[in-house]
Amino acid sequence: MKTHTEKIVIRTEKEKEIVNITRRVQEAVEKSGVKEGIVLVNSMHITSSVFINDEEPGLKRDFMRWLEGLAPAGDYEHHATGEDNADAHLKRTIMGREVVVAVTNGRLDFGPWEQIFYGEFDGRREKRVLIKVIGE
Amino acid sequence: MKTHTEKIVIRTEKEKEIVNITRRVQEAVEKSGVKEGIVLVNSMHITSSVFINDEEPGLKRDFMRWLEGLAPAGDYEHHATGEDNADAHLKRTIMGREVVVAVTNGRLDFGPWEQIFYGEFDGRREKRVLIKVIGE
Amino acid sequence: MKTHTEKIVIRTEKEKEIVNITRRVQEAVEKSGVKEGIVLVNSMHITSSVFINDEEPGLKRDFMRWLEGLAPAGDYEHHATGEDNADAHLKRTIMGREVVVAVTNGRLDFGPWEQIFYGEFDGRREKRVLIKVIGE
Repeated sequence: MKTHTEKIVIRTEKEKEIVNITRRVQEAVEKSGVKEGIVLVNSMHITSSVFINDEEPGLKRDFMRWLEGLAPAGDYEHHATGEDNADAHLKRTIMGREVVVAVTNGRLDFGPWEQIFYGEFDGRREKRVLIKVIGE
Repeated sequence: MKTHTEKIVIRTEKEKEIVNITRRVQEAVEKSGVKEGIVLVNSMHITSSVFINDEEPGLKRDFMRWLEGLAPAGDYEHHATGEDNADAHLKRTIMGREVVVAVTNGRLDFGPWEQIFYGEFDGRREKRVLIKVIGE
Repeated sequence: MKTHTEKIVIRTEKEKEIVNITRRVQEAVEKSGVKEGIVLVNSMHITSSVFINDEEPGLKRDFMRWLEGLAPAGDYEHHATGEDNADAHLKRTIMGREVVVAVTNGRLDFGPWEQIFYGEFDGRREKRVLIKVIGE
């Protein structure tokens, strides 16, 4: 069995931003030497997300507007701690913390439109994404 | 280590539909010969979902009505591309892309009510679900 | 390859409650002897959740209030079966059934604030959480 662990650093320019990380995950899979297995990709932070959807700029804006409706910035009990980002915890919950992707013949085994994204909801600072490949 | 990869094709009759795929996943686990490990089951499309819940027709209708409230059909920026299915991308996001299930003694290691479903939100055409079993 | 399976029992005092289970998952990882791999942690029930977020009491109350807004108790078709917990199925869907966490050097490979929680939405009775470690 082979395993490979990699942590990539992402610093978005905007507070809320969606970043395509598919190529970086594929590169980690290639480095791992794993031909058959799975790769776990997760945000190491609790106000950001890793998810799979479509590379389409309009849809990305739709996602951000929709999340603002479901989990708006505002007053939360969490803010009694001095934080002001409770909405980012909620937005990340809807989008999800992680994805697990099949690796087949050394490649991400994806449907035609699947792409991996990092969704940042409290950015402008360094965050990390963990990539763990296991297989043989 | 053993791995087994299978892609099943699903074509729903309705645009939005929930299909129980538990038996097909169990069959893939049996074919794999894996006794201890995990199985990843994911939609290969970005407007449909794989999730675990209860086999109960009323609850399935509750899910669909609830999703229509949280992620309604309507006007989205994504539709500038000619697509009209942005709400299906959002609905699938709430329901999730994938599940990972433990395999113990060659069986899906499930609680009493757990069943695996494919949730289609833009159907009436061929879609694929990926099943990847890894273990020994 | 090593695997380790464990089921922990949780009985909350309240109908809705968020319980930190990080230490119990770490203990299962230690028992497994796995140094490099992954651990799957999932609710075996369909009205409760396993998710990763922050250990902060105010935020936990924010989560519960927010979920009540998105998936309120009320009338659902599911209740024709005699059940009265459809909202718990929906709340668990937003929070997620499972997490997959990387194991590196025999430890949960976590960011600074990540903690694993069991989210109960229909409690006051025994429920089980499955922990499956695979790796080497």
